[in-house]
Amino acid sequence: MIESISQPHDLRSLSYEQLDDLSTEIRSFILEKVSKTGGHLSPNLGVVELTLALHRVFDSPRDRFIWDVGHQSYVHKIVTGRADQFDDLRHTGGLSGYPSREESEHDFVENSHASTSLSYALGHALADYEGWTIAVIGDGALTGGMAYEALNHIAVAKPERLIIILNDNGRSYAPTVGGLAALSNIAHYRIDPRYEKAKQTLGRMLRGIPLVGETADEMASRMKDAVKQIVDPATVFDALDLKYTGQIDGHDIELLEEILNQAKTYEEPVVIHVITEKGSGYKPAIEDEEEKLHGVGAFDVATGKAHKSELKLTEVAGRALAEAAASRPDLIGVSAAMVSTTGLKQMSQRFPERVIDTGIAEQHAVTLAAGIAMAGKKPVVALYSAFLQRAFDQVVADVALHDLPVTFLIDRAGITGPDGPSHHGVFDLSYLRMVPNLVVGAPADATELCAMIETAVDHDGPIAIRYPKGGAVSVPSVPVAPLEIGEAELLSGGEDVLLVAIGRMVETAEKAAAELSSRGLQAGVVNARWVKPLDPRIVEWAGSAKRVVTLEDNVVAGGFGAAVMEALAASGVTKDVLNIGVPDEFLPFGSPGDVMESVGMDLDSVVERILLEG
Amino acid sequence: MIESISQPHDLRSLSYEQLDDLSTEIRSFILEKVSKTGGHLSPNLGVVELTLALHRVFDSPRDRFIWDVGHQSYVHKIVTGRADQFDDLRHTGGLSGYPSREESEHDFVENSHASTSLSYALGHALADYEGWTIAVIGDGALTGGMAYEALNHIAVAKPERLIIILNDNGRSYAPTVGGLAALSNIAHYRIDPRYEKAKQTLGRMLRGIPLVGETADEMASRMKDAVKQIVDPATVFDALDLKYTGQIDGHDIELLEEILNQAKTYEEPVVIHVITEKGSGYKPAIEDEEEKLHGVGAFDVATGKAHKSELKLTEVAGRALAEAAASRPDLIGVSAAMVSTTGLKQMSQRFPERVIDTGIAEQHAVTLAAGIAMAGKKPVVALYSAFLQRAFDQVVADVALHDLPVTFLIDRAGITGPDGPSHHGVFDLSYLRMVPNLVVGAPADATELCAMIETAVDHDGPIAIRYPKGGAVSVPSVPVAPLEIGEAELLSGGEDVLLVAIGRMVETAEKAAAELSSRGLQAGVVNARWVKPLDPRIVEWAGSAKRVVTLEDNVVAGGFGAAVMEALAASGVTKDVLNIGVPDEFLPFGSPGDVMESVGMDLDSVVERILLEG
Repeated sequence: MIESISQPHDLRSLSYEQLDDLSTEIRSFILEKVSKTGGHLSPNLGVVELTLALHRVFDSPRDRFIWDVGHQSYVHKIVTGRADQFDDLRHTGGLSGYPSREESEHDFVENSHASTSLSYALGHALADYEGWTIAVIGDGALTGGMAYEALNHIAVAKPERLIIILNDNGRSYAPTVGGLAALSNIAHYRIDPRYEKAKQTLGRMLRGIPLVGETADEMASRMKDAVKQIVDPATVFDALDLKYTGQIDGHDIELLEEILNQAKTYEEPVVIHVITEKGSGYKPAIEDEEEKLHGVGAFDVATGKAHKSELKLTEVAGRALAEAAASRPDLIGVSAAMVSTTGLKQMSQRFPERVIDTGIAEQHAVTLAAGIAMAGKKPVVALYSAFLQRAFDQVVADVALHDLPVTFLIDRAGITGPDGPSHHGVFDLSYLRMVPNLVVGAPADATELCAMIETAVDHDGPIAIRYPKGGAVSVPSVPVAPLEIGEAELLSGGEDVLLVAIGRMVETAEKAAAELSSRGLQAGVVNARWVKPLDPRIVEWAGSAKRVVTLEDNVVAGGFGAAVMEALAASGVTKDVLNIGVPDEFLPFGSPGDVMESVGMDLDSVVERILLEG
Repeated sequence: MIESISQPHDLRSLSYEQLDDLSTEIRSFILEKVSKTGGHLSPNLGVVELTLALHRVFDSPRDRFIWDVGHQSYVHKIVTGRADQFDDLRHTGGLSGYPSREESEHDFVENSHASTSLSYALGHALADYEGWTIAVIGDGALTGGMAYEALNHIAVAKPERLIIILNDNGRSYAPTVGGLAALSNIAHYRIDPRYEKAKQTLGRMLRGIPLVGETADEMASRMKDAVKQIVDPATVFDALDLKYTGQIDGHDIELLEEILNQAKTYEEPVVIHVITEKGSGYKPAIEDEEEKLHGVGAFDVATGKAHKSELKLTEVAGRALAEAAASRPDLIGVSAAMVSTTGLKQMSQRFPERVIDTGIAEQHAVTLAAGIAMAGKKPVVALYSAFLQRAFDQVVADVALHDLPVTFLIDRAGITGPDGPSHHGVFDLSYLRMVPNLVVGAPADATELCAMIETAVDHDGPIAIRYPKGGAVSVPSVPVAPLEIGEAELLSGGEDVLLVAIGRMVETAEKAAAELSSRGLQAGVVNARWVKPLDPRIVEWAGSAKRVVTLEDNVVAGGFGAAVMEALAASGVTKDVLNIGVPDEFLPFGSPGDVMESVGMDLDSVVERILLEG
């Protein structure tokens, strides 16, 4: 049946039975494809019926779906004519794992950062957009503060043609943290027959009772509301006086359509609270407490187990941190819905009471850590590079301004790969090194990562360690001796050209130097280790080479290379410099190797550029 | 009496009558001092009694007050032994206008950015801090999303020894926007005798009624709650199940103390909703609808009118924008509680329906603009530089990634002066120029500011124009012809040294060049205008001078100077470069001139550095 759907209108002629069959087929399709390509599995299995209902009731692309985060848009892609591209999902040049304007006129927002959909939707409404705008936001994304800023604004502006679908599976990346989780207890009340009966009984009863100067009818009406309040706890939507449906079964297409059509008749925004089962239809995903099947690499469909299990830098960091925590009772881990994917997992297993998950709330997480440090403890904030961007001001004004001993463990730094432009962590060296008081390090390998963690947890001030998503080639036994802050390593000398590299580019630099030497160019290599403070000896070393090449897995604009040039300039050293790093453009998705090659950062390109641009 | 208070304990022996007298005296004191020095007037007049009550009930500094934003801490400063320093309030080397750890052991958070206090306070609680932590947050700051992230977390963690004072004057910088404003309607309900009577009547009445399988007593208890719900609309605190007092008169010290003492007996967080009158005790401040007396320069106490009224760049920008809006019906202004202080004022007067104020909610404001642009209109987001930092990720992932035509008008860029480290806007050139697709301009004077606004509103992509807080020397008649993007201006040639300057530093560069010429050094000057894209001719021009000096009102780290060096390096031009700009440290408060001098950016220092470091 999937092949017969080339555009959303094709869904309209189907019966509910046919739609059920289609749902089943779509689930098998996603399961089969994602098990081979990797991708976001559970979130998409959960929204099959919801997506079909949305596309039957609304008229895309005139009506616009804004998928918050965007990793739940596979079904949407299937019914908008892209089913045949799923073999290349997230592969270089293939189908994006997120909405993509380049792919389809049905896609609009491709940012993939959480909690933004309500702002986009309200923007459409306030711009008098002619069609409907439908924001589909998860319960996890709703914990992000900017979603609340937008809700607050929507509650006042009360525009027409704006629908909010709260897609609630009771989990975000990890189990939802926060008071909003209480919403999940509402469902059974609204469908409980006692609710209706109580409403009737009380309504009748109260009609005859005189009370404090108001008509009995008025009182009865308010009494009914009161009963509703008894049965349903107040939600944040009630507090904001937003129309709110209560919970709806997100796998019942007919019911969803009824509610959606009803919502269209109101002339104000409606919050439709849809309960979906994450991973629906696939047992390993439903029972997946650890959220291993939220986003996956290739896996075995029968068991849900990943095919390969190479040791990752994340795990190396996690081991080192847990080890450090064992001997430092003041160490407290903080993350924002990224505990298990950033290196806090082992610590949370060994010392669960010392790891705090704020849910999707990066700003709060960083300032919370500032408060923890101010009270005398030693917080370690573990986040992805792309998401730490969301707490930039908190790093500057809350942590660094107070010179507090907060450690930032920044995972997924640099070019990350298949998740695309907004997941690459290629800005952090630039936006962090401008921050006064902050130390910024980037280890060249797993051993240095462990060593820098040792350094960080004993450093009496703010410090950030960034490392890429990737495998750990060497596996150090922890604890490793700490690295001295601001101390670089001269790996080899060479009078023709000095390659000054940071982080994962050190390996490339060493290989390039070997290659260059074989071509008669004497190339030295420096592993800078610290972007800030920069080792002053780098200026010395650079002074004795004819040329300098900087290499970084970060944008060239204001990055590590710029730091080296600033240091040279400050010392009055004039030198021919070549900056190799990410150019001034948003990077596509694809394997890290492919992406690197596309921007001239792979080994061959590096060698060639050094030879050519010399 | 003020002189007799050298520390908070001195307040304990006073009677309520004496406290009232002291309150009056403190108001006169603040009024007199601030009318001479300038500073935050209305917020401090509003919290006199609240601050006295807090210091009588709690034991500072063991118990810690976290003043959200911090501009309401003058009374706190007075009662913690700093009254004698108010003659030098906000003056170089004098008393800070915000809490300052350097000044006093009673001060902790000095970030001055809104909505952070709850995170700090929770951090203390989760670090098992021994004393109480009291977050004092305004109704305006509560619209910031990160405050909600923290509330949500507090509601789940429910730590002991955490008190939240919601200081509600119904206005933030500007009248509070958003659903939370509805809170202001609660007060009269809670003190309405009908409330108590209804509670009693219903409680009695319902005790005899059998209902759906539950005891009458249980039902009665829930019924009472129900009545409470009828009478009080649900608040966000109710939705989160946080203990909430209802509204309290914030000028009644005895009542405040009673409530505070009661709050201390609970073993969970309590939200104390205090109603204060902004500007209390000073008629011009109470009646100040436009919030002119929120933060002021020197003014006349009798009238509340400012002494001088030099035309500011903000007004120049406002005029140009309003003029542009007149001929462009698609232009929509967006700000986050900064409409009247960023240049949207004139437009909001002429086209009120086309200016949107989100309240303190920078992240939402930026993504809202992205949505507006996506729907086909032309948003102009006007914010302070230091506050745009809070929406850095939204600039990157929401606006720039989608290459949307959003204009950012960035006020208070560069060294701003008396508000200190977290108000200086000295990072924006660095954090903006790394963003792909984004054009970044900085005008040298008022005429260029108007011209760049003309450029921006017709540019089909994201563009940021940053300008300092300051007077407009020349006053152009608008509209001015637009400036070509990426086109710099060679103001004068000179073979010894080329001064390449941006923004307000162009004036310094021209004066320095004249001075250098008089000392026999041929100095040329370039007004770069655009940091990105950088005019490639700058590389050419630089190529024909012996040395290059870059000048910017921004951090050197990754800033304009780094951009020039990157361009030189990319073109293979090797040149001796001196970068003049803000060094790698947080800047103090003081007059812009004093701050500039302290970091070697004033004219004399610039000339000297060019001569010395040559």
